[in-house]
Amino acid sequence: MYRVSRATSLTDVSAGVTLSYQQLPEISSDDVKSAEPLANAIRFLSVDAIVRAEEGHQGVPLGMAEIATALFTQHLRFNPKDPTWPDRDRFVLSNGHGSMLLYSLLYLTGYEEVTLDEIKRFRVLGSVCAGHPEIDPACGIEMTTGPLGQGIANAMGMAVAEAYLGAKFGSELVDHHTYAFVGDGCLQEGIGQEMISLAGHLELGKLILFWDDNQITDDGSTELAISEDVADRFRVANWHVIEVNGHDMDAVSAAITLAKRDPRPSLIACRTVIGRGIPRVQGQRGGHSARLYKEDAEAARELMGWAHEPFEIPEDVLSQWRAAGKRTQDEYEAWHARLAKLSAAERAEWERVQSGQLPEGWRDVLLEYKRGVVEQQEPKPGIFASAEINDLLLETLPERMVGCADLEAPTSHKRSQRAFTASDKGGSYLHCGIREHLMGAMVNGQAAHGGVIPLAVTYLAFSDYERPAMRMAALMGLPVKFVFSHDSIGVGRNGPTHQPVEILASLRAMPNMLVLRPADAIEAAECWEVALEHRTGPCSLVFARQALPSVRTRHTEENLVRRGAYILEEAEAGKRAVTLLATGSEVAVALEARRTLEANGIATAVVSMPCWELFDAQDATYRDTVLGGDTVRIGIEAALRFGWDRYLGGRGGYVGMTGFGLSGSAEELYRHFGITADAVVAEVKRLL
Amino acid sequence: MYRVSRATSLTDVSAGVTLSYQQLPEISSDDVKSAEPLANAIRFLSVDAIVRAEEGHQGVPLGMAEIATALFTQHLRFNPKDPTWPDRDRFVLSNGHGSMLLYSLLYLTGYEEVTLDEIKRFRVLGSVCAGHPEIDPACGIEMTTGPLGQGIANAMGMAVAEAYLGAKFGSELVDHHTYAFVGDGCLQEGIGQEMISLAGHLELGKLILFWDDNQITDDGSTELAISEDVADRFRVANWHVIEVNGHDMDAVSAAITLAKRDPRPSLIACRTVIGRGIPRVQGQRGGHSARLYKEDAEAARELMGWAHEPFEIPEDVLSQWRAAGKRTQDEYEAWHARLAKLSAAERAEWERVQSGQLPEGWRDVLLEYKRGVVEQQEPKPGIFASAEINDLLLETLPERMVGCADLEAPTSHKRSQRAFTASDKGGSYLHCGIREHLMGAMVNGQAAHGGVIPLAVTYLAFSDYERPAMRMAALMGLPVKFVFSHDSIGVGRNGPTHQPVEILASLRAMPNMLVLRPADAIEAAECWEVALEHRTGPCSLVFARQALPSVRTRHTEENLVRRGAYILEEAEAGKRAVTLLATGSEVAVALEARRTLEANGIATAVVSMPCWELFDAQDATYRDTVLGGDTVRIGIEAALRFGWDRYLGGRGGYVGMTGFGLSGSAEELYRHFGITADAVVAEVKRLL
Repeated sequence: MYRVSRATSLTDVSAGVTLSYQQLPEISSDDVKSAEPLANAIRFLSVDAIVRAEEGHQGVPLGMAEIATALFTQHLRFNPKDPTWPDRDRFVLSNGHGSMLLYSLLYLTGYEEVTLDEIKRFRVLGSVCAGHPEIDPACGIEMTTGPLGQGIANAMGMAVAEAYLGAKFGSELVDHHTYAFVGDGCLQEGIGQEMISLAGHLELGKLILFWDDNQITDDGSTELAISEDVADRFRVANWHVIEVNGHDMDAVSAAITLAKRDPRPSLIACRTVIGRGIPRVQGQRGGHSARLYKEDAEAARELMGWAHEPFEIPEDVLSQWRAAGKRTQDEYEAWHARLAKLSAAERAEWERVQSGQLPEGWRDVLLEYKRGVVEQQEPKPGIFASAEINDLLLETLPERMVGCADLEAPTSHKRSQRAFTASDKGGSYLHCGIREHLMGAMVNGQAAHGGVIPLAVTYLAFSDYERPAMRMAALMGLPVKFVFSHDSIGVGRNGPTHQPVEILASLRAMPNMLVLRPADAIEAAECWEVALEHRTGPCSLVFARQALPSVRTRHTEENLVRRGAYILEEAEAGKRAVTLLATGSEVAVALEARRTLEANGIATAVVSMPCWELFDAQDATYRDTVLGGDTVRIGIEAALRFGWDRYLGGRGGYVGMTGFGLSGSAEELYRHFGITADAVVAEVKRLL
Repeated sequence: MYRVSRATSLTDVSAGVTLSYQQLPEISSDDVKSAEPLANAIRFLSVDAIVRAEEGHQGVPLGMAEIATALFTQHLRFNPKDPTWPDRDRFVLSNGHGSMLLYSLLYLTGYEEVTLDEIKRFRVLGSVCAGHPEIDPACGIEMTTGPLGQGIANAMGMAVAEAYLGAKFGSELVDHHTYAFVGDGCLQEGIGQEMISLAGHLELGKLILFWDDNQITDDGSTELAISEDVADRFRVANWHVIEVNGHDMDAVSAAITLAKRDPRPSLIACRTVIGRGIPRVQGQRGGHSARLYKEDAEAARELMGWAHEPFEIPEDVLSQWRAAGKRTQDEYEAWHARLAKLSAAERAEWERVQSGQLPEGWRDVLLEYKRGVVEQQEPKPGIFASAEINDLLLETLPERMVGCADLEAPTSHKRSQRAFTASDKGGSYLHCGIREHLMGAMVNGQAAHGGVIPLAVTYLAFSDYERPAMRMAALMGLPVKFVFSHDSIGVGRNGPTHQPVEILASLRAMPNMLVLRPADAIEAAECWEVALEHRTGPCSLVFARQALPSVRTRHTEENLVRRGAYILEEAEAGKRAVTLLATGSEVAVALEARRTLEANGIATAVVSMPCWELFDAQDATYRDTVLGGDTVRIGIEAALRFGWDRYLGGRGGYVGMTGFGLSGSAEELYRHFGITADAVVAEVKRLL
């Protein structure tokens, strides 16, 4: 056994080799010639692919080849023949620019879709070997990574999902680790720091990071921008830290063994040489991603003693790698044997949750809620309607997990849920602290893990903090529910920092993101129905802080939100002169304006538009009917006009915001900014 | 002198009272009755204002009243009669929800615009006492704060500006501290963690934080979401840390003295009782912002021994506070005496830089560059054009500082600049590390400090990481230059994580943000001219990674970008049938399409639209002339259509992206996504 340097909590290590961060030997050609051929197989597949592509990032695959070899050949639980085995260990390459490391591993261990031909097409349009890993669990790619810090926060989300499902279904079905490779960038990013803090707090013991401590970033030496002891920063946050020579596979493997034993999350800090093996750039700034040439590959072959043609993996090396791909076959079969022993009901529930199917009866909960709202007709803050709906769904949907960034009271989405804590990982409510960005990426990891439906709750004004993670959710097509409260100047006196005006537009601008803004509690229930059905991408559910009067006064079994926009109040048949288009809290303003206009003999329809993306997907006839052809159309929203014009036609008007908000009561602000029925009436008259 | 608990580097403390984080006494009524009346003046102004407003956050003003009193009455260098004195200490309330603390201080120390009447109008529309502090240096409000973590990152930027200006102008003119109050939220946020890391690295010794360690956040106990030792986290990052009882003014004052002496940035960790003084809520979750009633104010008066009417500050207390406001009058006068001794040239340069005026000759640099580009006619990556321009401006504009998030080589904005480092604070290039969010807020702080023109440089795809800070820049109207490279699928093989498609729209959606996307090196120079002139808000300057051919083949003295959009190539007079509207790299696509269309007898104009916001500000006649009335208008941009419709008229077409990008070469991708001259021609023919 190995003794590791510096303080760790482990006292059971026997005398033996001392591994120390500080003891990384100078690289000499004697050293490298004895390097492990398995690691060199990664190294040269990567070099050859990068030389062929004429670009790529050699730093990670060359610097972390031994670490990856130790992990994949001695520890990782996986099955390349069944890549989506639910109880597999998860592996996230958070330093995603080192994608060739992952593709090399997938090819070597036998994932069928990652062929040598695909590797030769690295970075070519259409190749599975894209510039950065792009999520495809069937190919062994667990997450899309690249924007730094996201991957380790995703990994934390996976570890949360694993712990939660383990608590629900027992360790016989759920008992796996989440491993992530991470570079300096991920750890300098704030999101990475948020992750360190919260993962340590929650004691996510099955989360194990490998830090590629090569002391180089894109700008050069890490000394340009950091001087803290990164390992100590983890220790402060209750992590188990082991420091090793990252090119010593035995040491890395021993560290993994220790990491798996420790109840805390583990950082294996691996001192490495960036771009190891390429004489011209190793250990230097150019090791990161300087262009490599054929001559570099040849010099590396000489240095590392790799006497094989480009893309050639000797038979014995490949067969050892393929054997590694089958190493945990027994565990895989034992797991299936345990699964087979479940009762039919248990198994059905397991499979339902794993597949993301919703249970019978969930729609009934929403329909019943809608009926109740129609009976009560009580104004209600939009966010509390969402909270009520979620509370009602709690028993029906045990796979729903809620994360919230320190706004439990004002968003009210905890209610009867238990907290997920270090000592109770069966709780479904996660106090994320004031860490929105982490929360956004954590839910992505939960969704990618599978078996849970994650929600992330905060104020809409703070969605910008989450936005880089939301973009990743949209890009990956993950069914995450981003829940936002306090959606406009209706926030009131907290002022413009807390009042979204541009954020609806910026969310609607994001591809593959459904943005839902309900007008009342009934639309809130319908938005939730749409959101829960929606499996191909994330939703942003945007709720008002203030009480919303009911705009839907009759019960409908049909979900009217599903078409994105619909005629809420129609003018007399064939007479419509004006169409008022509104969303959320402004639908009530439109209804009030309509009453005045109709009283003035102006035939007016009100259209509620809770979801533009769904409306855009309707056929042209429906869209034109709703929008009202060449009637005067007025958009009404307590937000900027940006993006609205496509619905407003030639004579379009708009009643909304033109800049940031102010501190004052909601009522004062609506008047001050002229978002009132009177203003709508005046705008109509101006345009008619 | 005080000995502080735990390890600090200070060894010169004499024996005396031991102050310790752990030794905060239980609050008893005996204790509080002896509390300092000066602190209680803050406390009761705040309570009375919050009770009157029927909402607010009492936690900070009540919990940090003694800390604020110690700072403002014994240390802060300021002059309420000349609030914008350049060499004043800066004070940032990063926990901005505690705004009443600041307003109380400003009234008490004698800032004329913060009257008792304004305090009575706390949170009323139009009051200077807004829900959160809103930047107004003339009133003593240095920054808008509220979104957590921003304020301390702003404070770091102020400290950077101070250090840089100190190196340029000498400590006789520039020698002040930056103090910030900070709560748990700011420190949990990733941006706060980024700040801790970089400020420690840079040894910003004049940055002093006061942590309101009240162990409570909105959700309740901080134990819900954090268990690390926050003070240790600072120590790891090379901060000087002192832990004190935050209600012991002598201790706090002693800590400030120590902090000012230490060459590292200092954290004064103040153990406090949230909402101290209100029996019903102090020390509890409700201490943060639970609604306070008249009875609470009365009970607090009883507990704290404050026998005065609401909003009444006894004469002796007020006069002590007003004296505190005059405490540094001598320093103020001495500073002006030093200023008066400068030579006329030195003084003119100082005043120029302080006022934000640009020097003579700066435009000539840009004109000369434009002439050179016309002569060369060489395709050039947009970002390198920007880099060249900035390098040429270096001597002319010594107040320009550049921050970059670890992308020095690909963005190339360092060139001949020295780095700003711990040991050389006269360098104008700041290696921010992989910390975009901090960078965005840091430049806001630099701009608010004054005397420097800050740039923040990264890839456009990572602007989302900066976005919360960019929103604050827009809200505050700060003249920051956000510089972005790699602006579209032109990025190529790094793939969709690195390819913006929605980001132009999301930036254009932001109020008070100029978004500039030049088509070639000449437009790049014109965009820089506009950006440097623009003083009332931030600019986003968006550049291509790939080489852009010249679209402007003739030199013009006039800056054509200034009108936002202009006719680059016109059709035969009176014959225009088609208007192609494009920005950035797609202007060349439009020109190529025009050649084909004209060859086919279709009279076509090409409009370059580098800045929508400037174009929208033109008169209707100009706009209509440029847009081409009822010609067929086609928008062309390697981005989503979102936001374009307002320019496209009834028969509008669009050639651009419809979703996220892919990994492949730029050329492949432009073909794959159909952003080509052929596609434009086809779209025109479809619509004609």
